[in-house]
Amino acid sequence: MTERATMAEIAEAAGVSLATVSKVWNGRSDVSDRTRQRVEEMLRLHGYRGRRHWNTEPAGTIDVIFTEIDCAWEGEHLRGIEAAGHEAGVRVVVSSLDRGDTARRQLLQRLRAGRTDGAILATMSAAGPLVAALNRLSVPLVALDPVTRPAGDLLSVDAANFDGARAATAHLLRLGHRRIGLVAGLDELLCSRSRLDGFLAAHDEAGVAPDPRLIEHGEFDFPSGVVAGGRLLDRSSPPTAVFAMSDFMAIGVYEAARLRGLSVPDQLSVVGFDDLPGSRWASPPLTTVRQPLREMGALAVRTALGLADGGVLGTELVVRESTAPL
Amino acid sequence: MTERATMAEIAEAAGVSLATVSKVWNGRSDVSDRTRQRVEEMLRLHGYRGRRHWNTEPAGTIDVIFTEIDCAWEGEHLRGIEAAGHEAGVRVVVSSLDRGDTARRQLLQRLRAGRTDGAILATMSAAGPLVAALNRLSVPLVALDPVTRPAGDLLSVDAANFDGARAATAHLLRLGHRRIGLVAGLDELLCSRSRLDGFLAAHDEAGVAPDPRLIEHGEFDFPSGVVAGGRLLDRSSPPTAVFAMSDFMAIGVYEAARLRGLSVPDQLSVVGFDDLPGSRWASPPLTTVRQPLREMGALAVRTALGLADGGVLGTELVVRESTAPL
Repeated sequence: MTERATMAEIAEAAGVSLATVSKVWNGRSDVSDRTRQRVEEMLRLHGYRGRRHWNTEPAGTIDVIFTEIDCAWEGEHLRGIEAAGHEAGVRVVVSSLDRGDTARRQLLQRLRAGRTDGAILATMSAAGPLVAALNRLSVPLVALDPVTRPAGDLLSVDAANFDGARAATAHLLRLGHRRIGLVAGLDELLCSRSRLDGFLAAHDEAGVAPDPRLIEHGEFDFPSGVVAGGRLLDRSSPPTAVFAMSDFMAIGVYEAARLRGLSVPDQLSVVGFDDLPGSRWASPPLTTVRQPLREMGALAVRTALGLADGGVLGTELVVRESTAPL
Repeated sequence: MTERATMAEIAEAAGVSLATVSKVWNGRSDVSDRTRQRVEEMLRLHGYRGRRHWNTEPAGTIDVIFTEIDCAWEGEHLRGIEAAGHEAGVRVVVSSLDRGDTARRQLLQRLRAGRTDGAILATMSAAGPLVAALNRLSVPLVALDPVTRPAGDLLSVDAANFDGARAATAHLLRLGHRRIGLVAGLDELLCSRSRLDGFLAAHDEAGVAPDPRLIEHGEFDFPSGVVAGGRLLDRSSPPTAVFAMSDFMAIGVYEAARLRGLSVPDQLSVVGFDDLPGSRWASPPLTTVRQPLREMGALAVRTALGLADGGVLGTELVVRESTAPL
């Protein structure tokens, strides 16, 4: 495939934007006749056949594959994916793998029939057997927020996890907190490791030694946040603030505090990560790190269609009412 | 198109139900041979070719059209839709109308090309211009939780809204509450009216006169719950319990209570409606009415494919920690 021209090269040769080449390639009508002719000539000259090699006709379809359709990140990712898909004139087909082998088999069967222009792997392994199978099918793949480092030349879309965790931790340190608990995610996940590095870097920059006994692990959901938060608060020397690697776990820490009669933020500051819609509705509204989930979904679509090359999108600390000076 | 027989006319001519004609047409086995023969004869006689007139091959695709892809009901509906779609071997294509006319036009363009086996209208008007346009295209339509009464013979899937609201209200009455505030949805919505009727019926059955000054309206979201809850709590004679027609509005009432220094459930009981995943993570965990959102999504798919005829699915009161005896 590498010897063939990319869509970007076609765009440059025709002196138009990537979006215009894509529109012509996908048979959209909102391009002037003159431009269309020029682009079509360049497509012909360069023998452009797209990234698909099994099918010369675009399917007009993008597949999004979720581990599970949930109202955590998935809903926000899907909003961005749907909007970008429709903007590009492709249908967005949704699949979930939570029915195990059957779902996986059905998905591969369908994709084997050559009816997709690209697949977005949302928050899952970017190196497992599914990726290998999809690669064998030459389906253009994009890893959206992959939980493992992408294999080979797989393009990915990520959030600035390190920066976000550093900003969250620095915020607590600036408020005077020195004993900061961490509710981390599973260590084997890419985002957990980046966020842990950010947490440690902020301590380092402030000249504060983090206490390794104040690190607990959860699974990004509410129940594990209650458990991990409870363990931290039950220490003989408990933290005065907790940074949780997801909003759900942060709300779990709220619950652990409530069960112990501690009020947030007066007796415990809490920071989350994600900025899901519900985080501003928590009592009190949650200080958290905003992930640009919709923008990530949109970039994944553009990457799958060959209009972008993935990338890392910035995160941002959103200060609400769950953090207070020590 | 009007010159061709509809499935309803076939049903009448054969003296059987619509569901039976649908079963025969879709090759289902659960019809007696005698009935099948009669229906097939009528199908032949009337030259019935199905609701799709542009294509005799199934597209293998179901379209789900959301007003907005949100993490309220939409996520749960989609889980059920995706599971049932894959079980039936069809792709699930997701569209959202929150980009206005453009999204609507693109959707109609795509459906005009004849590439869907059916469309599910999720939580939107079942009688507007979009429905009319889709009907003109002869796309098999199902209204999932329609916000207006479905037009004509449009099949729909609903939750038992009346029963759920009655159970929620009866629960508060049994706990001794006599001044029960209501945070209703917009009156023009089908589900709001059914739930209001249930609220009033429970009062009637308990011989308690509801106070019309304790009824406020919201828009099913958190901010409007804070506002409506605040109005109720600021009355000279405030309610001791509040039933909100959505979980989000119920959590908004929590916030209104918190802002006034009132604790739930000691000083105010709160009941929601939906049982979204987050409601059990609220502080305290929310007593609410469970809507079978996934099951509704799955039934909508089966209905769109002609395997079911819609229907009303039961709701259930889930008692957690936000309600207490007066």
